[in-house]
Amino acid sequence: METKIIEIDLAELTIEEKAVPEEYEHLGGRGLTSTIISREVEPTCHPLSEDNMLVIAPGLLAGTTFSSSNRLSVGAKSPLTGGIKESNSGGVVAYKLGRLGIKAIKLQGRSKSESGPIGIRIDKNGVYFEDLAFLEGKTTYYSAEKLLEKYVRKAGLMVIGPAGEMKLSTACINVNDQEGEPCRNIGRGGLGAVMGSKGVKAIIVDDAGIDSLTKQNDKAKEVIKKFASMLKEHPVTGEEFAKYGTVMTLMSVNTLGGLPTRNFSQGSFEQAENIGAERLYETISERGGMYTHSCMPGCVIRCSNKYVDENGNPVVGSLDYETVCLLGANLGLANLDQIATLNKLCNTYGIDTMETGVALGVVAEAGVMKFGDFDRAKELIEEIGKGTVLGRLIGSGSVVCGKVFGVERVPAVKNQGMGAYDPRAIKGMGVTYSLSPMGADHTAGNAITLAVDHLDPQSQLEPVRDLNINTMVLDSLGVCIFTGRVTLQNPEILEEMIAAFLGWNVTFEVLRKMGKNFLLREREFNRRAGFTRAHDRVPEFMKKENLLPNNSVFDISEEELDKFYDFANGELT
Amino acid sequence: METKIIEIDLAELTIEEKAVPEEYEHLGGRGLTSTIISREVEPTCHPLSEDNMLVIAPGLLAGTTFSSSNRLSVGAKSPLTGGIKESNSGGVVAYKLGRLGIKAIKLQGRSKSESGPIGIRIDKNGVYFEDLAFLEGKTTYYSAEKLLEKYVRKAGLMVIGPAGEMKLSTACINVNDQEGEPCRNIGRGGLGAVMGSKGVKAIIVDDAGIDSLTKQNDKAKEVIKKFASMLKEHPVTGEEFAKYGTVMTLMSVNTLGGLPTRNFSQGSFEQAENIGAERLYETISERGGMYTHSCMPGCVIRCSNKYVDENGNPVVGSLDYETVCLLGANLGLANLDQIATLNKLCNTYGIDTMETGVALGVVAEAGVMKFGDFDRAKELIEEIGKGTVLGRLIGSGSVVCGKVFGVERVPAVKNQGMGAYDPRAIKGMGVTYSLSPMGADHTAGNAITLAVDHLDPQSQLEPVRDLNINTMVLDSLGVCIFTGRVTLQNPEILEEMIAAFLGWNVTFEVLRKMGKNFLLREREFNRRAGFTRAHDRVPEFMKKENLLPNNSVFDISEEELDKFYDFANGELT
Repeated sequence: METKIIEIDLAELTIEEKAVPEEYEHLGGRGLTSTIISREVEPTCHPLSEDNMLVIAPGLLAGTTFSSSNRLSVGAKSPLTGGIKESNSGGVVAYKLGRLGIKAIKLQGRSKSESGPIGIRIDKNGVYFEDLAFLEGKTTYYSAEKLLEKYVRKAGLMVIGPAGEMKLSTACINVNDQEGEPCRNIGRGGLGAVMGSKGVKAIIVDDAGIDSLTKQNDKAKEVIKKFASMLKEHPVTGEEFAKYGTVMTLMSVNTLGGLPTRNFSQGSFEQAENIGAERLYETISERGGMYTHSCMPGCVIRCSNKYVDENGNPVVGSLDYETVCLLGANLGLANLDQIATLNKLCNTYGIDTMETGVALGVVAEAGVMKFGDFDRAKELIEEIGKGTVLGRLIGSGSVVCGKVFGVERVPAVKNQGMGAYDPRAIKGMGVTYSLSPMGADHTAGNAITLAVDHLDPQSQLEPVRDLNINTMVLDSLGVCIFTGRVTLQNPEILEEMIAAFLGWNVTFEVLRKMGKNFLLREREFNRRAGFTRAHDRVPEFMKKENLLPNNSVFDISEEELDKFYDFANGELT
Repeated sequence: METKIIEIDLAELTIEEKAVPEEYEHLGGRGLTSTIISREVEPTCHPLSEDNMLVIAPGLLAGTTFSSSNRLSVGAKSPLTGGIKESNSGGVVAYKLGRLGIKAIKLQGRSKSESGPIGIRIDKNGVYFEDLAFLEGKTTYYSAEKLLEKYVRKAGLMVIGPAGEMKLSTACINVNDQEGEPCRNIGRGGLGAVMGSKGVKAIIVDDAGIDSLTKQNDKAKEVIKKFASMLKEHPVTGEEFAKYGTVMTLMSVNTLGGLPTRNFSQGSFEQAENIGAERLYETISERGGMYTHSCMPGCVIRCSNKYVDENGNPVVGSLDYETVCLLGANLGLANLDQIATLNKLCNTYGIDTMETGVALGVVAEAGVMKFGDFDRAKELIEEIGKGTVLGRLIGSGSVVCGKVFGVERVPAVKNQGMGAYDPRAIKGMGVTYSLSPMGADHTAGNAITLAVDHLDPQSQLEPVRDLNINTMVLDSLGVCIFTGRVTLQNPEILEEMIAAFLGWNVTFEVLRKMGKNFLLREREFNRRAGFTRAHDRVPEFMKKENLLPNNSVFDISEEELDKFYDFANGELT
């Protein structure tokens, strides 16, 4: 299929459809967003200025019904970290973009309009600007409903909430799922603020009238089935994810002593069971919600859920591990209904639940709220939505909160709050947090999945580096990292998928080499933006303060950490 | 005279008097604070943690009555910039420390006391801890008065206000002048927050019972007179400073188009005359205030003043150029009484008037106050004193305010707000702002004093570099930079002063070599703390947005700026 890159200049209000340069032919997802950003964005630019660019790219396999292979990447210079950022999500947009043959959308410049935000609508006939002034300041849920009503009920949406319009560094871009709920978030790094800074409220993607991309492709259809079977046969991707969702690992992380509790002051939470997977499963199924659900067309893993209240009314989809921990245990909250309410509020305003949870933990330490005080936590999130001074502050992320309140214990790297694994107990995660160009981003190399002694400082670096490279491959293909137990164990299946769909005969080893190059491009962008090895570190307190119950600190040596990018020397094509 | 270094551990509550290592014999002021900090503080430590150190060092000539030669340096890792910091002030403390033979005081660790802040008292018999719980949360003026009352009326004081206790990044350390007013501020970089983080409210220095250090030294007495005469003979140091104070240059900077007006959006202020030197002189003299005044014992320049209200009652001493511009023109305020009131408030809470002025400019741009609204500006500064969320935010400095409010036009380098010279019109100042390890610190190389075409991008680098090195020499000797017109034109006088007082025969050239080394040490600390050439830049908007009336941008090339430290190669001892 002919593919294209859409270049949109918000200042000039121009739209151009460009042919895909040959060198980008085999790039997609994170590989493509990071390549474009690193080549076309000045690393020292202000992230909210007209010089930043928002690049949207579905993964290389998008548009197909390969299970779990329609993730959407968005990249930019991050207002949160000040470095390069890629954040990806599920939902339906990547699938639709893939079907429309759109390899990337570049949002450049900045709208000069004073009459409210604009929209970008895409269908098989073209790309159009839309006046969305009527959605100015509106929540993501309200906006999504109005957009689906006004345009196409089945449209894919990328929409920002008030936080993105306020250009807060925790603002995300919400992507809708198959039911239209805007709850699959391009969450991390404040990419919603970049979209907001450009004056864009929403992107509406309609793929009506496009035929199946694999209609004539029997080989692809065969591999689609084969991949689905492989996923179904594995106990985790075939069963556990579907039953328990991403919260699956909560109790084991708690047992390992790595569950962030009350601003990362403990590694286990005495009420963990109340927010664990069994409880979540029981609660949703008793109430008649969906404890399993596919966030993307064709996904057989179905780790997503739709949390409902006591009366069976929808609260939020989906309640996931990081949110449950960071808006739960990390704030001393042990009630799933409460956590779901906070999650929904964050989604509604369009803010990252993770950075919000970490930031609330920091301000709780400063005394702005008490740990365990749900009403106050809710109030504080509402302040973000309202844009009060305190709200804007919390909405600017954990590091800024720490600075303003004089809190030293800020669990962040490169200005980004950590995922829900304390690196003093899950030490490999500390390698990812420290070295990923993304900052403290668990998804860049989700070390909890590794079969290592998580407390041993010696055995982390190499497997975690490997995982970061493999993750880059998956993020570029648009294949969900939750397939890792299958795809990374049997990478031939990825080769088959690519060959069948794209006719590209490539080995996993070559994909890894490409992945290393993408990582190095990201790292080079950060270097030019002003990052050094001094930023490749977990915060000081984690090297000194013992974490219960293991009484452990983060003790992987700086020398060891500094070897992470040693593949930069020589090994690359 | 035997000199010593006082090492104080606040955690252990120990005080040790140490002999001065031979290699430190000829170091003083900034040269000494920066050497100690760079050797003994881990550059990646949290600036408010027990790992940071506050080093207090009078200049090398302190304790004498050489005119303008009793400046006090304080160094630490800065909570504002994240890099190494030295800030120096006049007042009486350096003179007294010099007389007591104290070359440096090192404050290490952090008080574990829960019963309020402590004090450190120094006299000729020793060094003592004092319980200052009764001053917890009190303003600098109140605290100073109580301390002088309780201890010795003539004591020298270093005291922090509520802002320092709150550990805000704009907190300064106030030093008292000869009248006891705590208005000579160790202003920049949040060093008051470091003092506050250690649990120290005040340092009380009593030099009673010490004889003149030059009593038996006829040569020194002769050079003291000679130096005083030289300063008096020069039209600027002999007359203009005394009549007009530091505000002297305001109208010419306005004419040059470099006067920061309304958050650096213009380079000249239509009401500049209302806050200019003539107006200040007339106002103070008509009302019977002191339009001239020595902030340090023996200073013949007397650039300081005591501003009084309509009834002749004291408002604040001293109203100086940077404050008048940054709390005045930069906020659209053109009334000296109003500016003096804001200045006094800042002093009272113990915050840097400069960073406060820059931060208020940024929040004004965000709509938090209107330019020209004195009442609101006053209210906002009061919020800092009260420690409200908005107050803490503004008290965290201009860069954090810009981040939280999404303002791109933040006139800062390395997280520190600029002095009152827009680098688009006074381009040499942009070199200092960009390259000084201190961040945007005009005093590190006050380029306005150079006889160059300030608009010409070609002719700045070398003279400004030279001035940064010379300033390092003066800051290490403890000699005020306002002597520059005399001392830097006739450096032999510095050689004579040093030889006469210290018996050290050193050439100015050797002092400059030492100065270069100090600069490189500071730079190396910053490198290890994570600073790169990406941080050696004025903000992007100053490279793009034309500044009226010259329609100029900051256009010294990156290549040119990157040459600043070329002396690192080879030229050093």
